Amino acid sequence: MKVAKFGGSSVANATQIKKVCDIIKSDDSRKFVVVSAPGKRNKEDIKVTDLLIELGDTYASGKAYESVFEKIVKRYADIIEELDLPKSLLDEITDSTKKTLESDEPDEIKFDAVKASGEDSSARIVSAYLNKIGIQATYINPKEAGMIVSNQPGNAQILPESFPEINKLRDREGVLVIPGFFGYTANDKLMTFSRGGSDITGSIIAAGVKAELYENFTDVDSVFSVNPNIVENPKEITVLTYKEMRELSYAGFSVFHDEALIPAFQEKIPVCIKNTNNPSAPGTMIVAEKEQNGNCVVGIASDTDFCSLYVEKYLMNREVGFGRKLLQILEDEHVSFEHVPSGIDDMSVIIRNSEFTPEKETRVVERIQQELQVNTLKIRRNLAMIMVVGEGMKSTIGIISKATNAFAEANVNIEMVNQGSSEVSIMFGIEEEGLERSIRSLYKAFFG
Amino acid sequence: MKVAKFGGSSVANATQIKKVCDIIKSDDSRKFVVVSAPGKRNKEDIKVTDLLIELGDTYASGKAYESVFEKIVKRYADIIEELDLPKSLLDEITDSTKKTLESDEPDEIKFDAVKASGEDSSARIVSAYLNKIGIQATYINPKEAGMIVSNQPGNAQILPESFPEINKLRDREGVLVIPGFFGYTANDKLMTFSRGGSDITGSIIAAGVKAELYENFTDVDSVFSVNPNIVENPKEITVLTYKEMRELSYAGFSVFHDEALIPAFQEKIPVCIKNTNNPSAPGTMIVAEKEQNGNCVVGIASDTDFCSLYVEKYLMNREVGFGRKLLQILEDEHVSFEHVPSGIDDMSVIIRNSEFTPEKETRVVERIQQELQVNTLKIRRNLAMIMVVGEGMKSTIGIISKATNAFAEANVNIEMVNQGSSEVSIMFGIEEEGLERSIRSLYKAFFG
Repeated sequence: MKVAKFGGSSVANATQIKKVCDIIKSDDSRKFVVVSAPGKRNKEDIKVTDLLIELGDTYASGKAYESVFEKIVKRYADIIEELDLPKSLLDEITDSTKKTLESDEPDEIKFDAVKASGEDSSARIVSAYLNKIGIQATYINPKEAGMIVSNQPGNAQILPESFPEINKLRDREGVLVIPGFFGYTANDKLMTFSRGGSDITGSIIAAGVKAELYENFTDVDSVFSVNPNIVENPKEITVLTYKEMRELSYAGFSVFHDEALIPAFQEKIPVCIKNTNNPSAPGTMIVAEKEQNGNCVVGIASDTDFCSLYVEKYLMNREVGFGRKLLQILEDEHVSFEHVPSGIDDMSVIIRNSEFTPEKETRVVERIQQELQVNTLKIRRNLAMIMVVGEGMKSTIGIISKATNAFAEANVNIEMVNQGSSEVSIMFGIEEEGLERSIRSLYKAFFG
Repeated sequence: MKVAKFGGSSVANATQIKKVCDIIKSDDSRKFVVVSAPGKRNKEDIKVTDLLIELGDTYASGKAYESVFEKIVKRYADIIEELDLPKSLLDEITDSTKKTLESDEPDEIKFDAVKASGEDSSARIVSAYLNKIGIQATYINPKEAGMIVSNQPGNAQILPESFPEINKLRDREGVLVIPGFFGYTANDKLMTFSRGGSDITGSIIAAGVKAELYENFTDVDSVFSVNPNIVENPKEITVLTYKEMRELSYAGFSVFHDEALIPAFQEKIPVCIKNTNNPSAPGTMIVAEKEQNGNCVVGIASDTDFCSLYVEKYLMNREVGFGRKLLQILEDEHVSFEHVPSGIDDMSVIIRNSEFTPEKETRVVERIQQELQVNTLKIRRNLAMIMVVGEGMKSTIGIISKATNAFAEANVNIEMVNQGSSEVSIMFGIEEEGLERSIRSLYKAFFG
């Protein structure tokens, strides 16, 4: 049995939904289907989820929300009409959305339910269309599926007791179509996962039913070894390990929701990234373990908008607790950090810009000066991180040398190197200005 | 006015002391002289300070201490006799040491005083011999010099109020000979600095009198760019900055006591490392700032006996406070750490072996497993750290590439790289087994 998850672009309109249903039809083992809300039909389009967020905000602020509501209804109406499904399905979806909007729940809870209605509607439509083309299919609400989550609106976590319940879905007949992105608390409140959470639902279902494969359908044939906006026609990755995927996702590979695969990983279920628009392409397999072949680097990822907080103090390395106190100040101010390169009398903390707002910076700087009596304190913005990823890299002599040569050839100064903990990646910090040059040079070195 | 400090080998016997006094005589501006206790006369010899430590231990344990005492007296007797100084000086030294040993002070305080008597005796002897050869010289006790320290036996810190007092020494006539290694608390208790503390005394005096130069006489012509036991006849360093020196000292360059130069640094006093046995050699200058020339790497230092504590946990990078909690556990167990390379779901802490005893390891491992619920915890021993040091390295493209190539050529795998905080060094962690190969290869790359 396989779990197939279809992203927003795969259910953006009737044409796409037909492709989805053909894919399901072509393989009997695709028993569990997880769908996102309809995505963009073209570059200028707006995702249904974004319209739903606007709807929730407008309604809560007491302004006229009808035009947004109409836009959403229009999206469903077009799809239902083109798929030649009964008008009653549209009424059902419209009524349910309206009811959610007008409920007495507190705003935070209501927002989650409004946001999640996009996935819910997608699942109802796909299920109806499957039945129409002769495939026995049932819409399954996450509550019915047994997806019990923590009480954290917008950032719900699956609870372990869900998995035995989800496993019972194996005994149900036909194809089961489940909306992504949300679950229910033990008290029956709908809660969404973090953004992009349909991947999480797919991964949870795959773990729960102990699927032989979790197929993640998107709009690319496979995962690229490097950002195709920087390097033209880059090499496709055929096999990735979980660890490699997680490191790549961290640094800007947006194919996957960062944490989504963890439930599947824990059950060692292989994952395949496939293209709804080209389902015969083999895609990229993500597995627990793989055999090592020649080139142990599989991908080069990067991300921008980092900053560094540098402190210097005479004899810092003799002061037991200095590092801990510095991190304590950041924790008190709710600033999470990425890396802590350290010298003898100095220490840097690498932080994402978004974590380190000007207000937080002011408080942190003040506290460091007062509490730690440092000699120097400097903050640098506009740093980029580049990650070279691959299992087996750690024990292959010369990888870091190849990488650092590539930076030198691109005439880029390396501000930071972090190697030594992860066995599957080396991280380099540089000024954002040199990012594209560096990536191209690294690509040439490892894949050229 | 200059401060000249002479180490243990420079006052090991009468011949050496004559050289010291010739050096002082040859330059009128050498007004302040700081001396260590007599060091080794040959490889098999024992330093007077080590004999004094044995004396203190033996006396405290109630065992017969007379034979150690006699050995110490013999050292002074030989020197005094050969310098043709009055027998009364030997009696004075012997009586003073005996009085210290038999005092009613608590053991800890008494130990410090016994240990420090080696420097004190050296100063009395050098002062007497200077007068004998016609140079007006006075022995100055650190209390008289105004060296007020914190109440930390064996690890005293100079207090800021000392410096104006020390400055008044400028007005004294003739050469002032001051014993290194100790000061007095505000309550008149003698306290020693940490081991090698004569360098500290010299540095404090230089800062206090605002010397034009602090000369540190030892038994080498200059500081080498790399350990001469690994690379034959390595390049001598002519100019070093304070920062470079501090980084080199950290990783095994034992020319200097690690923290000794800080008081001089703070007053921007230049330091010169010179050879008592070859005083006409120019030595190595250590300065606040220097001009950059071609090769920005000045030295390669290394140290062994490190270990790494590796922990891995799913979603670690989302857990605010994880790093701080890990460091807190180490702090609670009084384990100070050196570096913290981190990945996304993992973190390593590099610790000196001596800090991480088996008992501490047991407690730390237990607490990490209980309190942090990590998925993996690994400890590796036998790591070596290599530091490539030089101002201007940070902004010179290609330095790290040159270094990593050298490791690859030596067929050594780099386990850890720490770059990004210090502006004057890059640190590499490797298995100890590959240390000498790596150093030779790095030397060839940067100086060959």
